[in-house]
Amino acid sequence: MVANIINMTSTKFVEENKDRLIEELKEFLKIKSVSADPAFAGDVQACAGFVENSLKKAGVAHTEICETDGHPIVYGEHIVDEKLPTVLVYGHYDVQPADPVELWDSDPFDPVIRSTETHPEGAIFARGACDDKGQVFMHVKAAEFMIKEGKLPCNLKFMIEGEEEVGSTNLGIFVKENVEKLKADVILVSDTSIIANDVPSITVGLRGLSYMEVEVTGPNRDLHSGIYGGAVANPINILCKMIASLQDDRNKITIPGFYDKVMDVSAEERAEMGRAPFDLEDYKSDLNIDDVHGEEGYTTNERASIRPTLDVNGIWGGYTGEGAKTVLPSKAYAKISMRLVPNQEWEEVSKLFQEHFERIAPKSVKVKVTPHHGGQGAVIPTNFAAYQAASKAMETTFGKKPIPERSGGSIPIIALFEEVLGLKSVLFGFGLASDLIHSPNEHYGLFNYFKGIETIPLFYENYAQLKE
Amino acid sequence: MVANIINMTSTKFVEENKDRLIEELKEFLKIKSVSADPAFAGDVQACAGFVENSLKKAGVAHTEICETDGHPIVYGEHIVDEKLPTVLVYGHYDVQPADPVELWDSDPFDPVIRSTETHPEGAIFARGACDDKGQVFMHVKAAEFMIKEGKLPCNLKFMIEGEEEVGSTNLGIFVKENVEKLKADVILVSDTSIIANDVPSITVGLRGLSYMEVEVTGPNRDLHSGIYGGAVANPINILCKMIASLQDDRNKITIPGFYDKVMDVSAEERAEMGRAPFDLEDYKSDLNIDDVHGEEGYTTNERASIRPTLDVNGIWGGYTGEGAKTVLPSKAYAKISMRLVPNQEWEEVSKLFQEHFERIAPKSVKVKVTPHHGGQGAVIPTNFAAYQAASKAMETTFGKKPIPERSGGSIPIIALFEEVLGLKSVLFGFGLASDLIHSPNEHYGLFNYFKGIETIPLFYENYAQLKE
Repeated sequence: MVANIINMTSTKFVEENKDRLIEELKEFLKIKSVSADPAFAGDVQACAGFVENSLKKAGVAHTEICETDGHPIVYGEHIVDEKLPTVLVYGHYDVQPADPVELWDSDPFDPVIRSTETHPEGAIFARGACDDKGQVFMHVKAAEFMIKEGKLPCNLKFMIEGEEEVGSTNLGIFVKENVEKLKADVILVSDTSIIANDVPSITVGLRGLSYMEVEVTGPNRDLHSGIYGGAVANPINILCKMIASLQDDRNKITIPGFYDKVMDVSAEERAEMGRAPFDLEDYKSDLNIDDVHGEEGYTTNERASIRPTLDVNGIWGGYTGEGAKTVLPSKAYAKISMRLVPNQEWEEVSKLFQEHFERIAPKSVKVKVTPHHGGQGAVIPTNFAAYQAASKAMETTFGKKPIPERSGGSIPIIALFEEVLGLKSVLFGFGLASDLIHSPNEHYGLFNYFKGIETIPLFYENYAQLKE
Repeated sequence: MVANIINMTSTKFVEENKDRLIEELKEFLKIKSVSADPAFAGDVQACAGFVENSLKKAGVAHTEICETDGHPIVYGEHIVDEKLPTVLVYGHYDVQPADPVELWDSDPFDPVIRSTETHPEGAIFARGACDDKGQVFMHVKAAEFMIKEGKLPCNLKFMIEGEEEVGSTNLGIFVKENVEKLKADVILVSDTSIIANDVPSITVGLRGLSYMEVEVTGPNRDLHSGIYGGAVANPINILCKMIASLQDDRNKITIPGFYDKVMDVSAEERAEMGRAPFDLEDYKSDLNIDDVHGEEGYTTNERASIRPTLDVNGIWGGYTGEGAKTVLPSKAYAKISMRLVPNQEWEEVSKLFQEHFERIAPKSVKVKVTPHHGGQGAVIPTNFAAYQAASKAMETTFGKKPIPERSGGSIPIIALFEEVLGLKSVLFGFGLASDLIHSPNEHYGLFNYFKGIETIPLFYENYAQLKE
């Protein structure tokens, strides 16, 4: 009954260190590690230093900052015994941009604790609180507990990157160049969510991503809409027509070949998904919408997980200030991303998009299509030791067996880990879908943060036992 | 042959005062009188003061600044003899916003003179150089010449407003409240263009305008496009669909009732329009476009003058910064304007737009439609004294009879002048379509500026003679 002893102890560790665990996470959250914006490059660098230092303080024997062509990767290694199994913990210390900043109730980089309906015991509000600093820090603190108590039953490696929010391009290169260094038995990632604080779950599917930027150019300069309007193609009108044509009346994506490799999900699996707790009225009321909107023939949960999508993430062009300006602009832009399902190749889809978008442009405009980044989707099996160790750990701390769940989000690097390192991942996230990641007022429940620190040590214990 | 004597003299006035005429205009152009943006309210006020002072210096006997609920109107009056005819000069001292400022080759509010292919003798580059400060200032300087030389053969009134670029709402109120004060025989306006410096023309038609702002709201907050994408309406995708549906495959506007009041132009008038000098290849090459784009069944000149249009003047929503952000935004916005032709009622069209836009919105979003401003189109007759006086004046100074031309632009207040004051207007503009009004690098040819100062006195003389 080793697991139970450790559980009591990790619980006690949390109980006795609550204030310190919160204060240390706050320091982490104060650093503006926005990877997408070059203006924050110095903050991202400083954040890598903070992570390395935290690993050192946790007692991790070897740490280093690995420079890349972009933001650095923090690497750590704590080898208990070469014969024991090795867990590679992956996470990211970079965060999404905070804008629109004016919609935050508090400074996104000055963490504060407030209670919410979902988090009556309090949640910490800051950009990156849940995605992914709070979840990375659970691993640092779980390691600290296990190392200092001398209870670590396996070897640990850490790979915490700074470019997850911009496509992990340099991590991909790093992984390919460091196959020996990264040798392990499994990868453990906390960058996903559970269904609810009383409905634990483990993510077993991720969508892939293809992210494009398009530029439509009409005339070579901004024109007066009175003098030229009606006679010269307006790039905004044309861009709207082009975007509108990408989805038909049934909300199917019209790019030729787009669905060719989509793997259909069996009726059994869809039936099982349908049994997960979900209330459409609650869903609509939480978002204040009168109706959902998606691909014909699929439920809301299916649309958001097992089906591919196309969303405009940003659009701009012409006059966007106060008042009225009668301009016929020279250019219009959009950022368009597609979520992909397992078997769709993201690079192939990006190419299909580009060719299609160029083909449908009328002769009156010029278009430029630039792929941003992308990644493969993934399906995680539930019948291997690491999944079972994670499931058992959650069952102990939550008192309920977690539900295997397919998520609509993307962690493109998961497919690359499997391809390059031959390693499966366990998606051991503790966030909630309502934590407003990527939105103003992102937060992370203290319940979830502490629960993670309690549960991770049990995973190590269970995993070591199962691998014996 | 009084006209010829005055012509020589106004030519001489320009010859002898070129440097001063340029320097004074530069001072006018330095004032940032951007009416659309409240941040410039102080500059707009200062600009009104500059205009009043210029009229005083020109010798105009009575001047005043008339406050409104918005920006002030500058009024001036110079009565030579109550029995003589009275010309009311209308113009505006406010300007369009200068953005995108980064596309200007020089500071938009620091006027400089450069030569261009079209203006080998130099043009003055600044926001408002042509629209409308440069053209207003021609009238101030023409009055200065006529008053100081004691040659003014009619009475003059000036009404120079500060809200033309934002819809002239308060000028409309001012006109209605000051019918007696504004009593005149004709209105003279220089806020349009000629076909080319060797092809003089007078505008005899203007389009109306209806300018709308729309807001589409999906979920109540920005969402993660992985977790919600595909299941929740993305307001940008929906806005694009809605905008795209406003024009059909033949580029006809689909708003029910939109064309009901459009007056068809006779085959004769279209044939006459077709005789105006126009080279489609030059037009395309000037704009660097491979094809024009507009309503099926009409030529480029017809599309830009006698047919109504619908242009998106601005669009924005979601993430528009550098890099990629996988957001499903809460809101998307657009500014959409329609150019109207004579007989279309702008308020009726605004209402048709609003009702249609609200009707086509799917239940998954909420839309808000806000009308900005608008105005009626106008047709100017060519068979009344003031038009003939203007035509004769141009014939003298250009050496060619001007072509009557219908323009695609809008000066909504012209229809109101006729309705409230019972006065026709003469659209006596000297700009060129290529002067980049409303665009970066707006400029006004020195040839055109000086030609206006030379020609306006001849108009007064011809008009007084014809009215005798």
